[in-house]
Amino acid sequence: SIRTLLSGRDLPLYRIMLYQFGWVNEDGREQTSNGLPLVHGELCMEVAKALSARREVALSHAAAVEISHKFWQVHVDVADGNPDRNGRPSVWWTWGPAQAINAGDGMHAMARLALFKLRDLGVHSEQIAASVGVLDAAIVLLCEGEYLEISFQERPVVAIDNYLEMAERRSGALMGCASRLGVSAAQLDDSIIGDGLQAFGSYLGLVRHIVDDYALFWGLGERDQTQQGRLQSKKKTLPVVHALTHGGATTKRRIGEIYMKRILEPTDADHLSELLDEAGSRQFT
Amino acid sequence: SIRTLLSGRDLPLYRIMLYQFGWVNEDGREQTSNGLPLVHGELCMEVAKALSARREVALSHAAAVEISHKFWQVHVDVADGNPDRNGRPSVWWTWGPAQAINAGDGMHAMARLALFKLRDLGVHSEQIAASVGVLDAAIVLLCEGEYLEISFQERPVVAIDNYLEMAERRSGALMGCASRLGVSAAQLDDSIIGDGLQAFGSYLGLVRHIVDDYALFWGLGERDQTQQGRLQSKKKTLPVVHALTHGGATTKRRIGEIYMKRILEPTDADHLSELLDEAGSRQFT
Repeated sequence: SIRTLLSGRDLPLYRIMLYQFGWVNEDGREQTSNGLPLVHGELCMEVAKALSARREVALSHAAAVEISHKFWQVHVDVADGNPDRNGRPSVWWTWGPAQAINAGDGMHAMARLALFKLRDLGVHSEQIAASVGVLDAAIVLLCEGEYLEISFQERPVVAIDNYLEMAERRSGALMGCASRLGVSAAQLDDSIIGDGLQAFGSYLGLVRHIVDDYALFWGLGERDQTQQGRLQSKKKTLPVVHALTHGGATTKRRIGEIYMKRILEPTDADHLSELLDEAGSRQFT
Repeated sequence: SIRTLLSGRDLPLYRIMLYQFGWVNEDGREQTSNGLPLVHGELCMEVAKALSARREVALSHAAAVEISHKFWQVHVDVADGNPDRNGRPSVWWTWGPAQAINAGDGMHAMARLALFKLRDLGVHSEQIAASVGVLDAAIVLLCEGEYLEISFQERPVVAIDNYLEMAERRSGALMGCASRLGVSAAQLDDSIIGDGLQAFGSYLGLVRHIVDDYALFWGLGERDQTQQGRLQSKKKTLPVVHALTHGGATTKRRIGEIYMKRILEPTDADHLSELLDEAGSRQFT
């Protein structure tokens, strides 16, 4: 469904979009891999399946939310300066920041066009408008979460409640939307089920955000480039937020010293992990 | 209509959006000026008025297209590295590229929420879905135009037809959309009028693009910062496209020499203007 939508036009711009999904390489040649995990789309499909939605209708909804997630990844990689994404050079690293910002904008608009394809499946406009509205509201929340996360970088201390509010929007909004669009795909007009599954998705996204924060310090194996980028840009992760509010004076001062450095060395990251562990922040997270 | 929409939420993120409209300063305090020209919104309003649309319905359509234009400006300023916009520091220059990319994404989603407000005015969902579809299709075209313009920077020669195709999408798509949404606001289901006014808007946008290209070299007064940015990033403007295809060998070589430089000096720009004038490209443009 996504491939058909993105392959329907012949400008190399669409190659950039297909690249982000892992389906083609930099030159537009097919990748032999099966592509990347499509977590948002899959959540939408699972919910839709559980509620006996028509498969084609579910696919359009899943495509819309997954394209939205991928547009956002493209932009985050520019904003955080991530050279890699999923073990390959990121879009901005390959095509430059201007093309990356633009390709992301294009995907943002394409996400909705995926929903408009529902007309061809006989879905009523009222329902399409409702689904587009759910998606837009989620993207606005996502941008609010992203705004908060960036602004936390400059704040010395962030309250745990504020962290949770940020993480729920930044990583929960689109997962909540994915789940809710699964309900929409089933054309189920039951706001208790809709709200409940949206809250479930949102909570799942929040949990994934916290798990990622944990893995940054105590994950198995090497930190990948995207994780390094999150560390380098000194994102306020949950263990750090916890240690800076509940840690002892010495811990706070030491973490503060590391966070004041312009560039973090790999040894700083390891030292940070130890400090956080001592402060009980690993346990807490 | 736009102010109400953007002021309805209390995060400082929305201050960034209001700033781009010229209504508040960096600290969120009211600007005494009347704000900036809203060309896309005004075109939409004029068309809607001519077709006797309801004023509130027209305003929501105008808000959607104008917010879309402004989101795109925020992103273009990051991509081109413009430090200024409309005589003030640009969003990325004030809040950094990460916040600027994110605020632009938020505005992109808010543009559609402006259309969903139409429900409260009793507009049928079918019509709202149609308007959202018109907007999304236009933004996809706009991104195609932007893709072409960026990729032209790396090509030595661009055919005039390719330039026109690029400029019509990049500067015509959203103006065409503005005009067409004026027709939608009038709830006029006449595709001849709709297509005609969309083509008119699109043509108007193309003409404005060419006028801007002309003003870059032979405008009255000093070049402003945004124009300087277009020169510095070596955009293939119509006079340059013309001279590189129709100019003599010496002209082409000299223009090529200037375009090969990493950084253009103000004297290079003046020298370029003279060369283009000699090649008849001023006349042609």
